[in-house]
Amino acid sequence: MTVPHEIQAEIANLQSEHALLLDEDRLEEWLDLFTEDCLYRIAPRENIDQGLPASLLVAEGQEMLRDRVVYLRKVATFNVHRNRHMLGPMRVVPDGVDAWLVIQNFTVHQSEPDRGTRLFAVGYYEDRVVRLPKGMRFEKKLAVIDGDMVMTLLAEPL
Amino acid sequence: MTVPHEIQAEIANLQSEHALLLDEDRLEEWLDLFTEDCLYRIAPRENIDQGLPASLLVAEGQEMLRDRVVYLRKVATFNVHRNRHMLGPMRVVPDGVDAWLVIQNFTVHQSEPDRGTRLFAVGYYEDRVVRLPKGMRFEKKLAVIDGDMVMTLLAEPL
Amino acid sequence: MTVPHEIQAEIANLQSEHALLLDEDRLEEWLDLFTEDCLYRIAPRENIDQGLPASLLVAEGQEMLRDRVVYLRKVATFNVHRNRHMLGPMRVVPDGVDAWLVIQNFTVHQSEPDRGTRLFAVGYYEDRVVRLPKGMRFEKKLAVIDGDMVMTLLAEPL
Repeated sequence: MTVPHEIQAEIANLQSEHALLLDEDRLEEWLDLFTEDCLYRIAPRENIDQGLPASLLVAEGQEMLRDRVVYLRKVATFNVHRNRHMLGPMRVVPDGVDAWLVIQNFTVHQSEPDRGTRLFAVGYYEDRVVRLPKGMRFEKKLAVIDGDMVMTLLAEPL
Repeated sequence: MTVPHEIQAEIANLQSEHALLLDEDRLEEWLDLFTEDCLYRIAPRENIDQGLPASLLVAEGQEMLRDRVVYLRKVATFNVHRNRHMLGPMRVVPDGVDAWLVIQNFTVHQSEPDRGTRLFAVGYYEDRVVRLPKGMRFEKKLAVIDGDMVMTLLAEPL
Repeated sequence: MTVPHEIQAEIANLQSEHALLLDEDRLEEWLDLFTEDCLYRIAPRENIDQGLPASLLVAEGQEMLRDRVVYLRKVATFNVHRNRHMLGPMRVVPDGVDAWLVIQNFTVHQSEPDRGTRLFAVGYYEDRVVRLPKGMRFEKKLAVIDGDMVMTLLAEPL
């Protein structure tokens, strides 16, 4: 634990903003939390543990992530659910100059009109965060999902 | 994110104390976390998103909130469940001198003897926190509930 | 709230590391978070509230806790589930020189291949944390479980 508390607090803020912008459906602003050459990936834990490359969602670079958001806006007519992220224990370790590896647990609950609220995903993030002149950004975000939940909306970021 | 980490930590402590005092059923001490002229409100997300005024619970001022606590103590004989709050990602933005707007996700699980534990409410707080000489206090607390959960105990604070 | 934010951040890190090491099944490293003469205990809330001594798991001292880990490694063949801890609101109060009492809510979700993810335990920790030359350590950790969940693996730490 040689990471200063100020740095940890900044990274915690980045993670919070990531989660809240998704819950608020502000996807265009959410994109700004990533570096130009970012890697974004969602994969089930079985694949990660066994070193399998298959993913539920992959975007290499902010532009590909932006395409995904444009796509999501087009299909949003059919998408009336709302997500609610919770963030759990976090571990930050240095990984070079102004860069850190970050592990953090998460849950996502999903609500739909007339269908109530249900647990949608449980897992952890494995991220690389870098400090740019404009602030902390995700260079890599990997969302690893426990168990074998049915993903009803594979295109959606977590 | 121009709010100093010290301020964020103080507000996080206020939110934690709010949640734990409710879980510990220390409602009289919980009242002290609010200003005299506070607004306390619980509403479903549908109403908030559509600008509808209907609420599940409203109290204008600490005295009205105190009346609610007195009422809850009277009916407590029938109330054997226990709540457990979890707090999620938080966003703090300045809103005047010594005042901040605070967004924070939450979940509440409810347990009853011989009936196990179930998810009771999922949503977010939208609060205004002010710094008084005696410390941080809630001037406004709005608890917005996702989905359309059946509220078995409307009178109860979240 | 007279505990400096730096101390609170260190204790929050200890709690996070405790949760993540359990989720990562790194039980041998998890042991290092406790003092030699630690008390580790899991009990249902009913027992705690009524002052009953019965527990789901008790270990007096790090050595007894180590024996438990050795035992868990032996039976691990039958144990394919994975845990995911979330940490909630935390309260820290001073309890002597370089010692603090810590209350923190938690949830644990459990995932099994082909059986999905389910809520496993909800409750709170009631801990005593001390500062040793090598860092913060648990002198006492009591995990209190709400409701009356069936514990499928009583031997397992929370």
